[in-house]
Amino acid sequence: MELNEIGKCAKAASRHLAILSTSKKNEALKAVAAALVANSADIIAANEIDVKNAKENGMSEALLDRLSINETRVKSMADGILQVADLKDPVGEVLSMTNRPNGLMIGKKRVPLGVIGMIYESRPNVTPDAFCLCFKTGNAVILRGGSDCIHSNLAITKVIRAALKEQGVCENVVQIIESTDRATATALMRLNEYVDVLIPRGGAGLIKSVVENSTVPVIETGTGNCHIYVDASADFEMALNIIDNAKTQRLGVCNAAESLVVHESVAKDFLPMLYKKLTEKAVVMRADERARAICPQMEAATEEDFYKEYLDRLISVKIVDSIDEAIAHINEHNTGHSESIITKDYENSLRFLNEIDAAAVYVNASTRFTDGGEFGFGAEIGISTQKLHARGPLGLEELTTTKYIIFGNGQIR
Amino acid sequence: MELNEIGKCAKAASRHLAILSTSKKNEALKAVAAALVANSADIIAANEIDVKNAKENGMSEALLDRLSINETRVKSMADGILQVADLKDPVGEVLSMTNRPNGLMIGKKRVPLGVIGMIYESRPNVTPDAFCLCFKTGNAVILRGGSDCIHSNLAITKVIRAALKEQGVCENVVQIIESTDRATATALMRLNEYVDVLIPRGGAGLIKSVVENSTVPVIETGTGNCHIYVDASADFEMALNIIDNAKTQRLGVCNAAESLVVHESVAKDFLPMLYKKLTEKAVVMRADERARAICPQMEAATEEDFYKEYLDRLISVKIVDSIDEAIAHINEHNTGHSESIITKDYENSLRFLNEIDAAAVYVNASTRFTDGGEFGFGAEIGISTQKLHARGPLGLEELTTTKYIIFGNGQIR
Repeated sequence: MELNEIGKCAKAASRHLAILSTSKKNEALKAVAAALVANSADIIAANEIDVKNAKENGMSEALLDRLSINETRVKSMADGILQVADLKDPVGEVLSMTNRPNGLMIGKKRVPLGVIGMIYESRPNVTPDAFCLCFKTGNAVILRGGSDCIHSNLAITKVIRAALKEQGVCENVVQIIESTDRATATALMRLNEYVDVLIPRGGAGLIKSVVENSTVPVIETGTGNCHIYVDASADFEMALNIIDNAKTQRLGVCNAAESLVVHESVAKDFLPMLYKKLTEKAVVMRADERARAICPQMEAATEEDFYKEYLDRLISVKIVDSIDEAIAHINEHNTGHSESIITKDYENSLRFLNEIDAAAVYVNASTRFTDGGEFGFGAEIGISTQKLHARGPLGLEELTTTKYIIFGNGQIR
Repeated sequence: MELNEIGKCAKAASRHLAILSTSKKNEALKAVAAALVANSADIIAANEIDVKNAKENGMSEALLDRLSINETRVKSMADGILQVADLKDPVGEVLSMTNRPNGLMIGKKRVPLGVIGMIYESRPNVTPDAFCLCFKTGNAVILRGGSDCIHSNLAITKVIRAALKEQGVCENVVQIIESTDRATATALMRLNEYVDVLIPRGGAGLIKSVVENSTVPVIETGTGNCHIYVDASADFEMALNIIDNAKTQRLGVCNAAESLVVHESVAKDFLPMLYKKLTEKAVVMRADERARAICPQMEAATEEDFYKEYLDRLISVKIVDSIDEAIAHINEHNTGHSESIITKDYENSLRFLNEIDAAAVYVNASTRFTDGGEFGFGAEIGISTQKLHARGPLGLEELTTTKYIIFGNGQIR
């Protein structure tokens, strides 16, 4: 189907979905979850084609693992949908209602965004995930997944659409673009007539391309050059545990720590302990000259290192003379994701919270908590690092907008 | 100064402004208001150059009037700033604070956006207005006004910066780009490193150009193809008054009515009354065939007319057979601004409120109320017709974002 036609169908379906009751939406979600399990053989068969192609293309073991679907993974997709069915529906909530002197009653009501375009890369589990979050919030979605998992994505979408149709729900609330070429993605980014919002999910390259090419409003997700600042008064054991956790608990995630900032007054005692701890986990430390004077085993960092999201067993280290320098360094190099201070000092904890410019700012905790689940949202569609609309983990509420509803009885100006 | 340098200075100034106390900000705003009045002679002298140039370029009387500054208008700029000083500061408010099972305390705090780019056209009063709204909400602003009022804008900005400096506030919280060429505007739209949000204020052409060229997130404001639907049960007198008000009270505004939709069951009686009323105000009606069969004096409308924001003594008229057709017609042709139904029918009023996709949806009231002042916001920076971040009149709160502040005591995942 032509992209313009897909957009048109999505817009029409979104009108239908916007006024569907919460109970009907939940019923449909449960039917979709059951259908995925019932049709797991078809999904796995389609996935086998993707896996075979990926192997031929020399995909790494780690990526192959992310791509592969088995019975357990289909079950887990279905469970994810059932969890979303159980969450509170944000649509329809009236956030405020005011009476004006002229008698107008003005309400602010939460409504769906309309049509969401989702551009993403490898993992096929993004497909049911994106569908159910958009559907629960009354949004039609146009999916554009990567070429690596196109067969899996098509099979999953086919099952979802059939289950919706059986439920009497317009199947065009979820559509997938079959073409995986770059031109189609770019055309989707400029489909302003039909698409209300674009959400890219993937690596820095994908997100940059969407931000640069899209005329449709974008919610930027993703890249995290997260810092941990070890203040002069830090508890060393706490600092060691938090850094270890933030760096090594999971390497390839956007809320992992990528850079350390250490106050000079504790560097001499702290850095050797830290070096020992991280080296045990095979983490390579790239440090500035002052840190290397203390720990010559560390590699030398270039200025470029301090801007890098490694997503790997690497971390940069910078020594500062004051909290002012720490804050300035972090605000200069971060990506606006998550930053943490380890301190016992009250004043410094507040200054860090106030002056650091990021979606999530921590005192004495791991940056790894920046996550919809950990924040108690129940579901997450990504982590926004931009300032418009939503910042930090995106839950269901962030997939809605508002409209003013105004009750009058003949008022004129 | 080079644009990149302006961006850098704005970002640095925004850090300083973000942590300025509300009382200090209000004090500075009052000083700026006083300085504008005290220096009105300089501002008026600069404005005279713009007015002289505009006359030579053949600017119309109406536009010349909008461009001109006299003592009274400087006073009114100053009064506007004092009013904003009196409004509640949204920055710093903690919107929620939750305790997680692991003991983390997660707060959501309202913070400034950072650096706002404002691209606008003729009227020089936008300059102090944009400055004070951004300043009150802790945002640095980069102004890029039109060439028609560049001398006025430079003079106003000079006065504001001098007053801020005297107050010990970094003057780079407000900067104006001296060059008014298109290339500079385009460069500002791509200054992602320093600019957090762009707000265009002006005609449809300007806004379209910003949406198409900007990689910085945009808050789209402005165009309104607003409809009034006269339902089968409408009170005729109420409908006549509301349509008259929405079309003629002020012609050139985005919340003026541009199109009527009339239920066929009342068209025969209602249209001749309406034709009489609007013709008295010299409004030309462009109607579909069915309306012209009733009122042959109306001009014939083309399909294009139904998409037009006239901003003039013109209105389009369409007859429909049902509320379903009315809703579909409006959702197809509107710009997502303001739409109103005139009805006595309970069910139809709710359907219209629920199913119309627009920033403001009215029952039995004029669309002219979509305005920050009328909504009780105290100030307005424009009216958003997009769905991300803010929809409808933009008040002070819409010039802020949030950040999560997380209090821990050693938590790891």
